[in-house]
Amino acid sequence: MTEPRRRQVAISGGGADPPVDALDAAEEVGRRLAEAGITLVCGGLGGVMEAASRGAAGAGGEVVGIVPSADPADANPYCTHVIATGIGHARNLAVVASGDAVVAIGGEWGTLSEIAFARRLGRPVVALRTWTVRGIGAMEDAPGIVPASTPAEAVDVVQRALS
Amino acid sequence: MTEPRRRQVAISGGGADPPVDALDAAEEVGRRLAEAGITLVCGGLGGVMEAASRGAAGAGGEVVGIVPSADPADANPYCTHVIATGIGHARNLAVVASGDAVVAIGGEWGTLSEIAFARRLGRPVVALRTWTVRGIGAMEDAPGIVPASTPAEAVDVVQRALS
Amino acid sequence: MTEPRRRQVAISGGGADPPVDALDAAEEVGRRLAEAGITLVCGGLGGVMEAASRGAAGAGGEVVGIVPSADPADANPYCTHVIATGIGHARNLAVVASGDAVVAIGGEWGTLSEIAFARRLGRPVVALRTWTVRGIGAMEDAPGIVPASTPAEAVDVVQRALS
Amino acid sequence: MTEPRRRQVAISGGGADPPVDALDAAEEVGRRLAEAGITLVCGGLGGVMEAASRGAAGAGGEVVGIVPSADPADANPYCTHVIATGIGHARNLAVVASGDAVVAIGGEWGTLSEIAFARRLGRPVVALRTWTVRGIGAMEDAPGIVPASTPAEAVDVVQRALS
Repeated sequence: MTEPRRRQVAISGGGADPPVDALDAAEEVGRRLAEAGITLVCGGLGGVMEAASRGAAGAGGEVVGIVPSADPADANPYCTHVIATGIGHARNLAVVASGDAVVAIGGEWGTLSEIAFARRLGRPVVALRTWTVRGIGAMEDAPGIVPASTPAEAVDVVQRALS
Repeated sequence: MTEPRRRQVAISGGGADPPVDALDAAEEVGRRLAEAGITLVCGGLGGVMEAASRGAAGAGGEVVGIVPSADPADANPYCTHVIATGIGHARNLAVVASGDAVVAIGGEWGTLSEIAFARRLGRPVVALRTWTVRGIGAMEDAPGIVPASTPAEAVDVVQRALS
Repeated sequence: MTEPRRRQVAISGGGADPPVDALDAAEEVGRRLAEAGITLVCGGLGGVMEAASRGAAGAGGEVVGIVPSADPADANPYCTHVIATGIGHARNLAVVASGDAVVAIGGEWGTLSEIAFARRLGRPVVALRTWTVRGIGAMEDAPGIVPASTPAEAVDVVQRALS
Repeated sequence: MTEPRRRQVAISGGGADPPVDALDAAEEVGRRLAEAGITLVCGGLGGVMEAASRGAAGAGGEVVGIVPSADPADANPYCTHVIATGIGHARNLAVVASGDAVVAIGGEWGTLSEIAFARRLGRPVVALRTWTVRGIGAMEDAPGIVPASTPAEAVDVVQRALS
């Protein structure tokens, strides 16, 4: 009999030419999640997504890549499971909905959409070198988005949120 | 022969108990867009969406409501055309993609996702009493998001962007 | 004040090189729907979709095109309102969900997916030179799919279903 | 280092009160796929989906459940990986796009939509006690849909298609 489903954590991050420190951070977050026995979920493409996938796979972890096209071959080579959605940027909703928590890394618009969807769904979000948002009224302090300074701190926050 | 397609502008705004000033602003933006011969596109539900729809319909304008469910009956009564998408929050992508420009009003998470998607697609965004976002690197100043103080100013910015 | 929403009927049909008789049928269905004061909803692209759009627009009707991409410019020139969904083939769900009834014309796989979704949502389907389906058990006769021989008959069936 | 991605095969089938022989067939297909080292992809809910999941998990296989809601808790207990899409019936596209081949079992409308989408994307479809479709013109014989009489034959056809 197969073992039950592991916890899943989504990494939100873009594919377009991110800075090196974002890639390093993503890879370390991926590795630390895998070491904690957590399945990584991400958008399955390059950049931050691929760096996180490489980190997780290198540590023996599982990597679910949810790509925008209908072609599983678009996934980066570190994905152990590929979901080809065929729904373009709307797959950002599926990425964060499939995580019990979300770690956002880097500065692309798609990442901001994932932060927003994650909070809409009530998922805790850890922000690591990414967008800062300020709302109005009760949302002034963007409740539920927790900043982290390092990958280690980000994974600590995630693990506390899941426990 | 039917006249050609009019310009379409999307209003991004939530349905959950928005403050009165957001509703007033949305209604005025809807009215001003209709007076300019622009078709209003929105998420088709209540709150900011309904206020904008009411403003546009009251001025004889057209209102396209793109609702999350597969049931057109979920649309507010001011929609002249209803798209029932059946894709839940992912319809936020369709709302902004269907606007030549986007006016964001109010403070819900869904609105933030629409701002992000609009910019991902290159649509100009006018921000009226809504989220403030700050990116990293080249995105620090959130390029393409133009703040406006009043509904009149918001519609002026939209019309300049479309011309 | 804008008049209330008209009835909407979806035409399901493909864009890839349909036979001339399918195009003629689609154009006539579009024209007859417009003459009946019904708004046409379709996938917004070429082939059967464009023929139906041309028929409706030529008779002064309204045409809502729901395109798969995030670019409204992909719509055929007869659409009076364009929804750019950005969700690819998944927009087929939105096409049929937005119709109070569905007329299926022609033989592409996308059309079969729309027939299936329409029935899943309980929409009446009129089949005009399109797929024939046979189910198992209670679905053997594919309940809710009504064959029609001519465009006139198809629109008659639709109008009876809506009344 | 994690091993590379396995082949993925989608089972298309409904959740609403399927006949016992469809459930038995689904469970056997799931088991045989797992024994062949293939990851099962399905819609993640009950009925045919759960039977196939149980068969695969019982044989030590992996089961990816792609559910319509945004809540991973909706998945059946045999799923080892859960994708919560939040896009309703439109997730049917993701189910078949994520399979290198598709086995269709049972007689619900959703299954017909999955057969259609699978063929639209060029995926081979094996039909086991499900819809029979007949097209027009070049599609008369519904090319690419291969009927199978037993679960063993269905999995044989799949394995030949993948090799």
